[in-house]
Amino acid sequence: MREFVMAPEQDVVISSRVRLSRNYEDLPFSPKLTAEYAEEVIERTADVVFNTEHGAAFTLLRMGELEEDARTRLVEHHLISYDLLKFVNRAAAMVSSAGTITVMLNEEDHVRVQGLLPGLQLERSAEMALKLDEALESRYPFAFDAQWGFLTASPANTGTGMRSSVILHLPAITAAGQTGVIMQTVAKLGLAIRGLYGEGSEARGNLYQLSNQATLGRSEEDVIRAMSAATRQIVEHERSMREAAEKKDMLQLQDSLMRSWGELICARLMTGREFMRRYSDIRYAASMGYLHAPLPGLDMMMMDLQPGSLGVRAGKLISPRESEILRAKLLREELPGLVSD
Amino acid sequence: MREFVMAPEQDVVISSRVRLSRNYEDLPFSPKLTAEYAEEVIERTADVVFNTEHGAAFTLLRMGELEEDARTRLVEHHLISYDLLKFVNRAAAMVSSAGTITVMLNEEDHVRVQGLLPGLQLERSAEMALKLDEALESRYPFAFDAQWGFLTASPANTGTGMRSSVILHLPAITAAGQTGVIMQTVAKLGLAIRGLYGEGSEARGNLYQLSNQATLGRSEEDVIRAMSAATRQIVEHERSMREAAEKKDMLQLQDSLMRSWGELICARLMTGREFMRRYSDIRYAASMGYLHAPLPGLDMMMMDLQPGSLGVRAGKLISPRESEILRAKLLREELPGLVSD
Repeated sequence: MREFVMAPEQDVVISSRVRLSRNYEDLPFSPKLTAEYAEEVIERTADVVFNTEHGAAFTLLRMGELEEDARTRLVEHHLISYDLLKFVNRAAAMVSSAGTITVMLNEEDHVRVQGLLPGLQLERSAEMALKLDEALESRYPFAFDAQWGFLTASPANTGTGMRSSVILHLPAITAAGQTGVIMQTVAKLGLAIRGLYGEGSEARGNLYQLSNQATLGRSEEDVIRAMSAATRQIVEHERSMREAAEKKDMLQLQDSLMRSWGELICARLMTGREFMRRYSDIRYAASMGYLHAPLPGLDMMMMDLQPGSLGVRAGKLISPRESEILRAKLLREELPGLVSD
Repeated sequence: MREFVMAPEQDVVISSRVRLSRNYEDLPFSPKLTAEYAEEVIERTADVVFNTEHGAAFTLLRMGELEEDARTRLVEHHLISYDLLKFVNRAAAMVSSAGTITVMLNEEDHVRVQGLLPGLQLERSAEMALKLDEALESRYPFAFDAQWGFLTASPANTGTGMRSSVILHLPAITAAGQTGVIMQTVAKLGLAIRGLYGEGSEARGNLYQLSNQATLGRSEEDVIRAMSAATRQIVEHERSMREAAEKKDMLQLQDSLMRSWGELICARLMTGREFMRRYSDIRYAASMGYLHAPLPGLDMMMMDLQPGSLGVRAGKLISPRESEILRAKLLREELPGLVSD
């Protein structure tokens, strides 16, 4: 069995991410970026990253050289943005072996450095990203304006160029119908919350992404502090709602959550939609101590069973029905091993 | 793990039962049976039964001395009839340790000897009952008329005094909506089929009881032969429907049946109604080889989790909610142990 260490507030916060958007000052911005300049972006960045202290841990992935499922898998594991795939021919990513640092190349901006950690660790994610950012900047200066800050292809990112986000698991708040209140509250703080998967108001797996909107007029520290404070408030609210649900009828709660465990380890056909619903149930059960399974292991499995990642596991293009079969098979084979008693 | 041996046609036939209704010729029949005569019935019968070859294996149970749950438990395990409980003050039963032979005393008739075996074993059940019947008759003659045969309290049983029945598990026939056809077919043979549990057309657990109607004008051998032949036809039909369901979409069938296994081993609250539905699923799954659990073990568990039996396990009067909790607890604790891999 793999060993998993719990990260801060991981009962509610799945991961924390900080992204910095940067552009080399002497190369044309995205709209005018030719194939040659795009290659120059990749070479410069690789040159610096491979020569940092942990450079050997990085892999350079050119999007054009990957199968579609392999690219989708990177998105599903939050290692790259979905938008990077809009520029498949020129885009690349440098990914650290642990997946905690990624550098996206030739997305909307030349360089997007990402720090990604489990649980609520925005400060640490920002530190990681800023450290690599400094290594790059010290060698090849980025476009920077004394008044506006870092210049970016889209004005929405100009300033700090920093976007931070956390992925939240909010089954109890969702069940209590309180997501609307949460949305209004965070909007007042200049933050936004939306379902991570699904369309419209649907949040598959009861997963939400909280992110900052403004990149102008606030320092990196201020933004991270505000994001962390808002996250902590939501965490406390979710915890109190879980406790209330348990207090109301613990057996009923255990019954409904643990039945999903039974379905997951016995099903022969499992759609992605049903899987997300049941993943939410067993993550909730594990956070309450009803099920002795490590949250990081459940989250890893959740990403591994998304459509693209599943395709990579299959090693070939698979039909929706084959996906349902493979997802159920992997669940039966691997899920019971996550439980410690 | 207990060892279970498969009985003939046990994939479809749960058990076979033969009952003989008899009355001592020198004692008044049911309507005029006083407490003293009822006691005489018990003493005579016990005297003979305890002194047969396997007499030491029998226990005499006086209904008036048992708690209500303990009495209900005997009905649920098919050891006595529900009707025996109409005469609690005078009624008794002699039950063999394996439960295969029971003598009901002071029900509608003085003596009802029952042979009960798993699977399709009507001939053997009849032999067992007739052997004990002969032992009783040789000592204390039964009311018999050369023209009418054995005389009984109700004319419906006069003649052979024999009722035979089998309990059938028909999930595939039920799912295909063909129970109506089966009912019409057996009616033409002088037989009747009805849901074993549930009211009206409902058959909880997809369990049905097939029994003979006529006791006059046909020999015991004829009736048993007709019952066995009809049962075999239904067995073949059920098997072909199961094969058809598997052929149509095996994964879909496995998926729907095995999910019930997951629910049974994970639930914290389980109503009797849901339990019967899921028991039917896993019995079906086991008969198809999807689940490596012994059918006799599943059937025993099914009886053990009926309301009265559950009350006996609890050792006290329990509320419906407590029943749901205890049923789920026993399933989680005991069901996984039935599976061999």
